[in-house]
Amino acid sequence: MNKSEAKTTHTLLKRIGAHFGKLENIGNLGGRREDGFDRPAWSHEETRAIKYIQGMAEKAGMVSSWDGVGNLFLTTPGHGNEIVQVGSHMDTVPAGGNYDGAAGIVCGLEAIIPLKPMWERLSRKLQLVIWRGEESASFNAVCKGSEAAFGLCHPDILLRTNHGVSLSEAITAQGFDPSFIAEKKPTLTPEQTEKIAAYLELHIEQAKRLQTDGVPIGVVSSIRGTVRLRIEVTGEANHSGGTPMGIRYRKDANLAMAYMQVAMHEACSYALEKGLDLVQTVGLLNDDEEFNKNHTRIFSNSLTKVSPYGYFAVDIRSNNNAFLAEYVKNTKKIIQEKAERFNVRVKITEILRLAPIEKLDPAVQHSIEASCRDLKIPFIEMPSGAIHDAAVVASQKKKNGNPIPVGMIFIPCRDGISHNPAEYASPEDLARGAQVLSNVLYRLAR
Amino acid sequence: MNKSEAKTTHTLLKRIGAHFGKLENIGNLGGRREDGFDRPAWSHEETRAIKYIQGMAEKAGMVSSWDGVGNLFLTTPGHGNEIVQVGSHMDTVPAGGNYDGAAGIVCGLEAIIPLKPMWERLSRKLQLVIWRGEESASFNAVCKGSEAAFGLCHPDILLRTNHGVSLSEAITAQGFDPSFIAEKKPTLTPEQTEKIAAYLELHIEQAKRLQTDGVPIGVVSSIRGTVRLRIEVTGEANHSGGTPMGIRYRKDANLAMAYMQVAMHEACSYALEKGLDLVQTVGLLNDDEEFNKNHTRIFSNSLTKVSPYGYFAVDIRSNNNAFLAEYVKNTKKIIQEKAERFNVRVKITEILRLAPIEKLDPAVQHSIEASCRDLKIPFIEMPSGAIHDAAVVASQKKKNGNPIPVGMIFIPCRDGISHNPAEYASPEDLARGAQVLSNVLYRLAR
Repeated sequence: MNKSEAKTTHTLLKRIGAHFGKLENIGNLGGRREDGFDRPAWSHEETRAIKYIQGMAEKAGMVSSWDGVGNLFLTTPGHGNEIVQVGSHMDTVPAGGNYDGAAGIVCGLEAIIPLKPMWERLSRKLQLVIWRGEESASFNAVCKGSEAAFGLCHPDILLRTNHGVSLSEAITAQGFDPSFIAEKKPTLTPEQTEKIAAYLELHIEQAKRLQTDGVPIGVVSSIRGTVRLRIEVTGEANHSGGTPMGIRYRKDANLAMAYMQVAMHEACSYALEKGLDLVQTVGLLNDDEEFNKNHTRIFSNSLTKVSPYGYFAVDIRSNNNAFLAEYVKNTKKIIQEKAERFNVRVKITEILRLAPIEKLDPAVQHSIEASCRDLKIPFIEMPSGAIHDAAVVASQKKKNGNPIPVGMIFIPCRDGISHNPAEYASPEDLARGAQVLSNVLYRLAR
Repeated sequence: MNKSEAKTTHTLLKRIGAHFGKLENIGNLGGRREDGFDRPAWSHEETRAIKYIQGMAEKAGMVSSWDGVGNLFLTTPGHGNEIVQVGSHMDTVPAGGNYDGAAGIVCGLEAIIPLKPMWERLSRKLQLVIWRGEESASFNAVCKGSEAAFGLCHPDILLRTNHGVSLSEAITAQGFDPSFIAEKKPTLTPEQTEKIAAYLELHIEQAKRLQTDGVPIGVVSSIRGTVRLRIEVTGEANHSGGTPMGIRYRKDANLAMAYMQVAMHEACSYALEKGLDLVQTVGLLNDDEEFNKNHTRIFSNSLTKVSPYGYFAVDIRSNNNAFLAEYVKNTKKIIQEKAERFNVRVKITEILRLAPIEKLDPAVQHSIEASCRDLKIPFIEMPSGAIHDAAVVASQKKKNGNPIPVGMIFIPCRDGISHNPAEYASPEDLARGAQVLSNVLYRLAR
């Protein structure tokens, strides 16, 4: 690094630090970052955080424009009909961190501003997009802002409440118009959508593969879809000491569930050996606090009883749509087989099914990798395990029938922790991300 | 059945029905049997239930005698220095049934009374023993009354509380003397113990083997010991979508526990194939309501996280002491192995260890079987899966070095349900039990 580069990096670190310092005062649940944040969708806190970024962008000379539901578009002055977008969100989960979403916005801003001397010379404008309400924690729906922009939100979600306030009321309270969602009317005109030359999103990884493997940048090649199942198993209560073993006497829910999990894990290992993309997690096992409130029979289980009831929830994700569907079908078969073997009844509920984005735009991905090489920053290609606004944008087709070109950049977050007050991304990792992003924006807009 | 036998049975059914009708009013939690019962150890309700039986026994001509802690001994007048005992308990678990314990007392009473014409001709006296506080639900200790009779109670239990009242206070409040327990002083003199020629106990099976196999009488050949373990597994929270499979990235508590359970179940099946006596039950799996109050991190598990924490409790029982000890050692090894395989930490806590009574008295068992044949009532030999006061008596040696001869009779309870308001034994099954018991008492005392 020469002297001028070192100075640039130093300035960038300072600016990024200052932004997060300001954001730490918005929706903070205590006095310190470690106390966590609450900036729900269409809350005053979310709006304040968005307006902080708006102020910074306008100060740098960018032009703002709100859409009908309150997404904010901050555009550079300049030439060309097309735009290159970089976006993410400012809302958080309850008691969440200051980086999930905000990292993408701050780095996006700090990727665009250093290009200011070039703005007028670029053939495309740059645009920072702040989507509303990405987190499903409020109103139980993901990517609400970006979906509304393209007319994808289901109108039903307007009736869902958060702390007693409906989504419809929350949108109105922030000065925007819920009728876009009610009527499934996109806030962006077809012409505006057509003008999007590319969309980029930087996000904290929310897992610790980058940290474990010691790599600072993940170039996202696909976004995994997810199928979530709840498996409820009903057996029969019997005395643990007096009831002989075997299914003539025992209908043991916990035992059946153990065999189900092991068989499912073996099926997963087999798929991985064949080189398929798959992650599978039994995150809940009799211990979903909310679910238990309405299923108190879980507490009739005891140390000295064959368990009459149990459940688990599995999250299955893959970036391969056809494989995911087939795999889930096979999982249900495995569960049924084990239920029969252990003489228990089983109820399988599909909680969620979201299709993957099987491939993000190869040209954009190439540009990101070229930028990393330029900057001598190591990277790996990887799927995104989580859904992001990028997935919504990537689902939109332009007039030529091709999807909007989308690329994503992951940066490490400490120990993979997110959705938690302990969420943290280092200024160095953020700065590296902003530098790559800036380089990519320049490549795509020059 | 001839006419006279039919009349006897009819009378017996009526008398048994009348006793349970009276007992249904003592400690009943509502207006009906189905509302459940609460007659804790050394409560007014337990005392009232005992005194009801006392009244009935005295009315029939039996003589009562309380020991120092409030166990009641109801003895027939007659000859001989030795006595043949039949006993059980009148306390219940909270929201328990009217048969666990009470069935043994009522059938014992109705086994002794029909022998009244023979009392004076028998060479041994008959004695109905009502032990205090058999259930561990109050004061977290089993067989408190019978243990106190032989000086076996640990003094520490006097300080344990039930609804804010210590055991010491509860015993005093019923007019008895906790110092027997405090000083580990038996309430029975060595001479009294020496005089016990045999002890019998009838109990509901508390499992449904008899019902499943369609047999009305179980002749208990052994009482299983139990080892109870709690296994806590600590993994690491990670994003379910972004974290690759495999232990390089995942420390999955729930997955490790599933493999532990399956391996433990395979070890169990192997032991059963070798003909060993064994039952093994994972009754609690992340769902111990009390435990969770102090281990709230269980609720940090979520659908979209690799599970950072989980636990299960296993109850392992066998009537073979050496095998049980060896098997538990092997179980701990299996658990450690799986913990290592899945890169999680494990903590194994031994909650309880009670030795089995490997063999109840063969001569008494013979007598019970002979009585069943006499009465043309089918029976099977079986281990008792639960601990009973009979196990305490069987642990006591007489001067000749042999244990007090003990026998147990099981009768079916509907669907194997006990410790539950739905607990039920039919008058017919109770009457059959009383008839067998009466026949055995006559054989042992004539």
